[in-house]
Amino acid sequence: MNYEINSRIWIKADDNMLLGIGRVELLKAIDKTGSLSKAAVSMKMSYKKAWELIDSVNKSGALPAVRTSTGGKDGGGTVLTEYGKEIISIYEKIDQKCKLFLEEELKKIDFKCH
Amino acid sequence: MNYEINSRIWIKADDNMLLGIGRVELLKAIDKTGSLSKAAVSMKMSYKKAWELIDSVNKSGALPAVRTSTGGKDGGGTVLTEYGKEIISIYEKIDQKCKLFLEEELKKIDFKCH
Repeated sequence: MNYEINSRIWIKADDNMLLGIGRVELLKAIDKTGSLSKAAVSMKMSYKKAWELIDSVNKSGALPAVRTSTGGKDGGGTVLTEYGKEIISIYEKIDQKCKLFLEEELKKIDFKCH
Repeated sequence: MNYEINSRIWIKADDNMLLGIGRVELLKAIDKTGSLSKAAVSMKMSYKKAWELIDSVNKSGALPAVRTSTGGKDGGGTVLTEYGKEIISIYEKIDQKCKLFLEEELKKIDFKCH
């Protein structure tokens, strides 16, 4: 029998939900598209839902993770801040380490019944 | 700012969902009460839902995790098998190690923006 282990992690800041996999994917989609509405479409999510998630990330963290500019020659857009990039990178590193750790732990297990 | 990390793990056996936290809690409630219906009530879950979850655990694992006996002087009941006890113990040990690992990883992080 082939056993496999999966995990999900999430990070809270002062007891408020900051980042889970859904929020990380949305932030990365914003980084890729430069637009909250395009990011929402790419995630098959309503604009309202995407806006609420980003608002929650911005309010929970030490600093906003996303900045929206209006006007200018490109008509504005939404971009990640340094803090936004930092917390995504931290989340992804820990998530990857966690998955490797769990794989190693599972390998150590000797299932008596199999 | 105080950052905190949480996790959930689940174990698959030959690509089938075997154990997640909900299934583990249900199995432990069966172990405590000796009854699937009492376990379902204690988890505020319908009997049908509890039966389906246990049926899925029994069919996914190498051996059944739960055994039901009928009749006898105690009127039968539902108990965990050795395999059932083994996989719960494995799940809980790995889950606890995972949480400790994540706490340690988070401590190592130096948030530049905080």
